[in-house]
Amino acid sequence: MAEFVHLVVVKFKEEVVVEDIIKGLEKLVSQVDTVKSFVWGKDIESMEMLRQGFTHALMMTFGSKDDFDAFQTHPNHLEYTATFSAAIEKIVLLDFPAVVVKPPTA
Amino acid sequence: MAEFVHLVVVKFKEEVVVEDIIKGLEKLVSQVDTVKSFVWGKDIESMEMLRQGFTHALMMTFGSKDDFDAFQTHPNHLEYTATFSAAIEKIVLLDFPAVVVKPPTA
Repeated sequence: MAEFVHLVVVKFKEEVVVEDIIKGLEKLVSQVDTVKSFVWGKDIESMEMLRQGFTHALMMTFGSKDDFDAFQTHPNHLEYTATFSAAIEKIVLLDFPAVVVKPPTA
Repeated sequence: MAEFVHLVVVKFKEEVVVEDIIKGLEKLVSQVDTVKSFVWGKDIESMEMLRQGFTHALMMTFGSKDDFDAFQTHPNHLEYTATFSAAIEKIVLLDFPAVVVKPPTA
C-alpha cells in the first residue's frame, strides 16, 4: 500500500518563535504512533520569486490513508492545531498518496 | 551530513498532461545520479481553502547541498526546466537541509 504524505508549507508570523512550534510538533509526533516519519526544514536558497514568502516545509509520512485519518482526528493533534493555526501567516497544505519514483537508498 | 530537500508545490496549467511531465521527471532523475530519492503526489483531500489551488507536490532528496547544486546546474535539468516552467500555472519552491525528527522505519 502507498504511503500517505501530509505536507505543510508555511510562513509563520513574525513574532512567532519557530523553535517552540517545532518542539510542539516533535511532542505531537512522539505521541501519535501512526506518524511514520517527520521531516522539516527552512528554505535556505532564498529564491524569493519562487518561494513566494513561504519559509518552512513540514512533511509527515504515514503507512496508509487510514493512519493519516487517525492522526487527523487524534485529540492531541486537534489540540495542537489551535496553537499552530495561531502561529501562521500563510499556509499551503497538500495530502497525497506518495508515488515513489526513486526510492531512498541507504 | 543532513540530506537536502528540493520541494516543489505546483498547479499545472489546465491543458497540461501531468503524466507527460512526470515521465519527463522520471527520466531526469534516472539521468542525474545525485538525486537520492524522488517522490510525488496529487492532493486528494481537497481542502480547497488550505491547498490554495495547488494540486501536486514533488520532492527530491539529495545526500548533501553539493549534490543538490550539481543537480541544479546539470545540463539535463536546465533543459527540462524550460518544459516544466511552460507547464505551470503557479508554483512554490523550497530548498532546505532536512531536519529529521522521526526517521522513517522499515
